[in-house]
Amino acid sequence: MSDTLELTRALVARPSVTPDDADCQKLIAQRLAPLGFTAEHMRFNSVDNLWLRRGKRNPLFCFAGHTDVVPTGPLEHWTTPPFEATIREGNLYGRGTADMKGSIAAMITAIERFLIDHPDAPGSIALLLTSDEEGPATHGTVKVIETLQTRGESIDWCLVGEPSSTDTIGDTIKNGRRGSLTGYMRIHGKQGHIAYPHLAINPIHEAAPALLELTQTKWDDGNKHFPPTSFQISNIKAGTGAGNIIPGEMFVEFNFRYSTENTSEMLQKRVLEILERHRLTFDLDWTLSGKPFLTAAGPLVEAVREATRSVNDAPAMLSTAGGTSDGRFIAPLGIQVVELGPVNQSIHQIDEHVDVRSLDTLSLIYQRVLENLLISLPYSHN
Amino acid sequence: MSDTLELTRALVARPSVTPDDADCQKLIAQRLAPLGFTAEHMRFNSVDNLWLRRGKRNPLFCFAGHTDVVPTGPLEHWTTPPFEATIREGNLYGRGTADMKGSIAAMITAIERFLIDHPDAPGSIALLLTSDEEGPATHGTVKVIETLQTRGESIDWCLVGEPSSTDTIGDTIKNGRRGSLTGYMRIHGKQGHIAYPHLAINPIHEAAPALLELTQTKWDDGNKHFPPTSFQISNIKAGTGAGNIIPGEMFVEFNFRYSTENTSEMLQKRVLEILERHRLTFDLDWTLSGKPFLTAAGPLVEAVREATRSVNDAPAMLSTAGGTSDGRFIAPLGIQVVELGPVNQSIHQIDEHVDVRSLDTLSLIYQRVLENLLISLPYSHN
Repeated sequence: MSDTLELTRALVARPSVTPDDADCQKLIAQRLAPLGFTAEHMRFNSVDNLWLRRGKRNPLFCFAGHTDVVPTGPLEHWTTPPFEATIREGNLYGRGTADMKGSIAAMITAIERFLIDHPDAPGSIALLLTSDEEGPATHGTVKVIETLQTRGESIDWCLVGEPSSTDTIGDTIKNGRRGSLTGYMRIHGKQGHIAYPHLAINPIHEAAPALLELTQTKWDDGNKHFPPTSFQISNIKAGTGAGNIIPGEMFVEFNFRYSTENTSEMLQKRVLEILERHRLTFDLDWTLSGKPFLTAAGPLVEAVREATRSVNDAPAMLSTAGGTSDGRFIAPLGIQVVELGPVNQSIHQIDEHVDVRSLDTLSLIYQRVLENLLISLPYSHN
Repeated sequence: MSDTLELTRALVARPSVTPDDADCQKLIAQRLAPLGFTAEHMRFNSVDNLWLRRGKRNPLFCFAGHTDVVPTGPLEHWTTPPFEATIREGNLYGRGTADMKGSIAAMITAIERFLIDHPDAPGSIALLLTSDEEGPATHGTVKVIETLQTRGESIDWCLVGEPSSTDTIGDTIKNGRRGSLTGYMRIHGKQGHIAYPHLAINPIHEAAPALLELTQTKWDDGNKHFPPTSFQISNIKAGTGAGNIIPGEMFVEFNFRYSTENTSEMLQKRVLEILERHRLTFDLDWTLSGKPFLTAAGPLVEAVREATRSVNDAPAMLSTAGGTSDGRFIAPLGIQVVELGPVNQSIHQIDEHVDVRSLDTLSLIYQRVLENLLISLPYSHN
């Protein structure tokens, strides 16, 4: 069994459901200490974060990721226990094998081999780990980044190990993410008996034209890097349960995944304009989960694409699709960020798994990224 | 204290929450027995019904009503106990005083006085009582009417004692009711992650154009007797609660209150046409609570209007507004039906009450209706 596989299994054995780190970070810190990594444990509220760094100079290359995993769901639905990573038919099964303990193991073994070859590599290497990526994410990566910024410690390139691959390892990298903006709306009417509609104001009827307009509006056309902004209503509810009562209010929750052709301010303004034009009485609260970011071109994207081409026939596709990730907290500082990790087809599911060989391949890709950025490329020594 | 008031208090003292009759019907049967009324107790499932009749000939005039009352709600909110009818400032407070034990008491005292004056009145007088008007109403009036129909016993005129009055006793009578048709609809989409809307089908978005059209459709213009048909959505629900999931289906419950310009079949057809034109995938179940009915003109309406004019300055207004009543089960047989009873402002509420004097006035009106139909009017002897 390869080093990467063995380390993945050791990490999976620690049931680190968000925000519990279950000593994963301690294991990693101990493993990298002999290679010259200084460990800084940063605990914010109930969230464990770890900042590991080797070297004092820039450029600073940083692997980022999370040790926490999502809950298992019903244990009896798993073919083998989720916290005992098990190999069956070429796959390694277990919670976190794909998202993203496999990536963390591959990062560590990549660093180990890289440092054997290049013990005096220029620049610095760091590892940023949190135990709250799958949860609220308010005391995780964002806090570590704030701490580094406060003391003037700057990252040049960051590779997040999120499972970005679609069919085979390294076929897709995420070089950006759409923004995510959520609205929580209450449309006010006036409750009444259904036999006397003239004495009531039905918020469902009042809102119908505005909701239709919201679902049919074209918010932008997207651009070269981003698909068009999408608007989706996730939850809607009105009614007392009784069939003869016109409800007094309606709740609507909606979400934008938006491109860099828009801003949260522009979207909010347009939604308000629609609601007001339809003369609705409403309350509306907003949550901005993340602004869109993009690492369009540059040393990091080139290095990662070259590394994927070295193991596959073609370089990885660039994509900005999919859900949010901790990249949203790193990119706003002007840091180049890409995400590259295992195939994501089974993440968050029962019987989560990765192809066994893909983890070794991923480790080779990560090693190549280090070589490309810190050894081969002239611009890496600036 | 008047006879009517005393009898009302005796009935209120029996806590006959649907479907419990709490021996109200027994009390009434005993009281009318000496006057020549034959009692027929008809129990269907857990519902007590009473058919009291005096005389064998037609025309048959029937008072109809219910002994059951709606629940009290929190007892501590009542100023005085709901089942101890109490006089305060000219009002009689208690559950059922307005809906409709006051009416029943007024019917009985009206019959008593009428029979003293006209012991040999032509035709017959009946009283139809149920203990399930406020509930499902499936084993109440409708079953009694079926029983009478089966044995060829026909009612000519029926006065239901529902609280029809708006501000003062006798200002409004209901000479019909709109139909009530309810639809329970499930619109099917395809659940998915909100970041991948192209892989999902959002039922809220799919349904938005159809819902808008349903809320904006003019179903008819009503007519002389009925307001236009109204469509109201009472309940709507979609969403898992999670903000990042596009729901797989949406539930919508809606209700028509419809005029005699429409039929339930026509409304169902038009709804289906709209849903299908918008290419929705859906399930739709219907419940028809009652067809519309109308007693437009004739001896009963004339007799009741004259009776109200005899105690007020003006005859009662005719109305078909408001919720359903047991009249819907009686009218379809071609029986003339009107509803006349107390002021309905406090019904189903905490501190339900009636004006004390209004019950005596109501008894006088009922007595006058009997006189108009069975004694004064030539057509009453047909």
